[in-house]
Amino acid sequence: MTTSAVVAEAPVSAPAATVLHTVTIDLGERSYPIVIGAGLLDDPATWAGLPRASCAAIVTNTVVAPLYLARLRAALQPHYARVLEVVLPDGEAHKDWPTLNRIFDALLAAGADRKTVLFALGGGVIGDMTGFAAACYMRGVPFVQVPTTLLAQVDSSVGGKTAINHPLGKNMIGAFYQPARVVCDLATLVTLPPREFAAGLAEVIKYGPIADAAFQDWVEANIERLVARDAAALAYAVRRSCEIKAAVVGQDERESGLRAILNFGHTFGHAIEAGLGYGVWLHGEAVGCGMVMAAELSRRLGLVSAAWVARLERLVAAAGLPVRAPTLGADNTARYLELMRIDKKAEGGEIRFVLVNEAGQAMVRPVPDALVAEVIEARGSAT
Amino acid sequence: MTTSAVVAEAPVSAPAATVLHTVTIDLGERSYPIVIGAGLLDDPATWAGLPRASCAAIVTNTVVAPLYLARLRAALQPHYARVLEVVLPDGEAHKDWPTLNRIFDALLAAGADRKTVLFALGGGVIGDMTGFAAACYMRGVPFVQVPTTLLAQVDSSVGGKTAINHPLGKNMIGAFYQPARVVCDLATLVTLPPREFAAGLAEVIKYGPIADAAFQDWVEANIERLVARDAAALAYAVRRSCEIKAAVVGQDERESGLRAILNFGHTFGHAIEAGLGYGVWLHGEAVGCGMVMAAELSRRLGLVSAAWVARLERLVAAAGLPVRAPTLGADNTARYLELMRIDKKAEGGEIRFVLVNEAGQAMVRPVPDALVAEVIEARGSAT
Repeated sequence: MTTSAVVAEAPVSAPAATVLHTVTIDLGERSYPIVIGAGLLDDPATWAGLPRASCAAIVTNTVVAPLYLARLRAALQPHYARVLEVVLPDGEAHKDWPTLNRIFDALLAAGADRKTVLFALGGGVIGDMTGFAAACYMRGVPFVQVPTTLLAQVDSSVGGKTAINHPLGKNMIGAFYQPARVVCDLATLVTLPPREFAAGLAEVIKYGPIADAAFQDWVEANIERLVARDAAALAYAVRRSCEIKAAVVGQDERESGLRAILNFGHTFGHAIEAGLGYGVWLHGEAVGCGMVMAAELSRRLGLVSAAWVARLERLVAAAGLPVRAPTLGADNTARYLELMRIDKKAEGGEIRFVLVNEAGQAMVRPVPDALVAEVIEARGSAT
Repeated sequence: MTTSAVVAEAPVSAPAATVLHTVTIDLGERSYPIVIGAGLLDDPATWAGLPRASCAAIVTNTVVAPLYLARLRAALQPHYARVLEVVLPDGEAHKDWPTLNRIFDALLAAGADRKTVLFALGGGVIGDMTGFAAACYMRGVPFVQVPTTLLAQVDSSVGGKTAINHPLGKNMIGAFYQPARVVCDLATLVTLPPREFAAGLAEVIKYGPIADAAFQDWVEANIERLVARDAAALAYAVRRSCEIKAAVVGQDERESGLRAILNFGHTFGHAIEAGLGYGVWLHGEAVGCGMVMAAELSRRLGLVSAAWVARLERLVAAAGLPVRAPTLGADNTARYLELMRIDKKAEGGEIRFVLVNEAGQAMVRPVPDALVAEVIEARGSAT
């Protein structure tokens, strides 16, 4: 896995967009660039050099469509004889087969052939569904990710995971399928609601503790600029997040082991999401709080100092994220443990957690329930 | 693409099965063997060395289950702590999402993990659906093909095509996904209805004209043994068919060009199937007749002699397949041309056909409608 930080060529035509970084995801024949900049959506150079086809299809949702669909359509029209639009309902509740099938219905009704290029315009749900549709339509067509949320830019851009949910489990039906290109237009982040923006910052914050202490220092020093959505600061945060995720995923493309460190904060986080009911806290909010809990667990195992935990807690709070765990009913601690045991499909043994040290290194280890219980009790009472 | 004809090791334990050939499909990391023999289903050696897992799932249909499900289950039980069974309704009409979803429902309800091995026990529909389920379940689990029809043994064994149908088109949603192993037990062909067996022979006959004149000679010399379902003759026919298909597909895994020669007889055949209504003639019956028509077309283009066409016609008839084209209504010829134009998505120009010469070579060429019309008229009146 190699990453290159500087784009080779400046955009050749107006309107002037600022390409700030390009991260190359090196996967042999399936390598692709993540282009990061401000105003990329309207820049013709952004869309040059993609697989040639007579037909493109933009898949988006009812929230994003009024904001950016017309602009993306206008940008693509010089490249494709036909540009189809598929506008899906918004939200995780629609990440299912009937909604996915609306993409197939639209493509087949329009006679879209097996060279058709799909464009995912939206957040993680749109990216996951469009990517899976591209993996399956006529056994595979190219697709381009245009993530319009910070979470999608720093998370779904790398890793090739696509999926839909099944009533019995999230992301149970899907494929590993790589995009032809990812276009992260930082200008689209301006329209993100504050809670969603903060939720994206949780994943940015995550990359420091698990892999790069210097990046954690940088995020701390620049958290106000990030919260103010400064394009240059965001560009570096997105770039470095993608680089770190790429380095981790590159050693474990099919998710057999190392990749698990990307779930720092997620075991506690998933328990919070499931315990409160999905959607009460955003995923990133639960992860933000979960990271503080996982840091506290790391401290109790002697991996980090109390000062370091306090530092991480301040950073998470500065991002606008919760740092105290919500109460999940009368048997609070038992409920947390139960939910985490289900999430990890632990077979009677100890639950495994992603732990960190102060050098920016992560490890996955089983932890005794008693110690986990102490953390839940010490970091609780958000509600 | 290399093929090896002889299995390295004899089965080590009773009951004694006869492994007659092993064809290795060479796809780098995704290479797999096609094991061909009589009595393989009950032989423990057949099922050794597959990916280790605690759970296996046999997917089959209501016709095949009473014949072979218990035997496969018994053979797998020594290797897997749990062997799930998913029995689907029979037929192409059920090659759809709701039926596919029954596989996911069963796997998730049983808590089957991402190492679960799926076994496709049945014909082409079961193979296509199980392969696609394996491609998608938790983003990919291993699967093993156990084709119980001649058509599936000589066609679906090679190529990695999996799919389901969509109301607007056959095989529109799927994946290229390779099995871990294919087990062709010739003993299972004994229970095939005569029409289905003959339909499988159509694809066997196909491989000679498109790629190997010597194999065509062999099939002619052995057609009575094949029709009598002689195991040794069938073993060679399945082996050589798989080898030829592997050689073609190996040069064109993602179906960009050469692979089209595998559709010899299929352009006329698809028109017959669609024109009569799917299921009136079996696919193989339509292909049998379609090959004679494509041979006649080749003759009118100077590629083969009338004697060669007569030879192929005798062979197709000896296999128990129709050789005269059915009438598709009052505007018979126009209807054929219309159906073939839809099938090929021809954009106003001439329809492309797979043509052959007497040296066992195929080519894909556009042919003027007038010449195609002559063939339809000359080879018509089956009904």
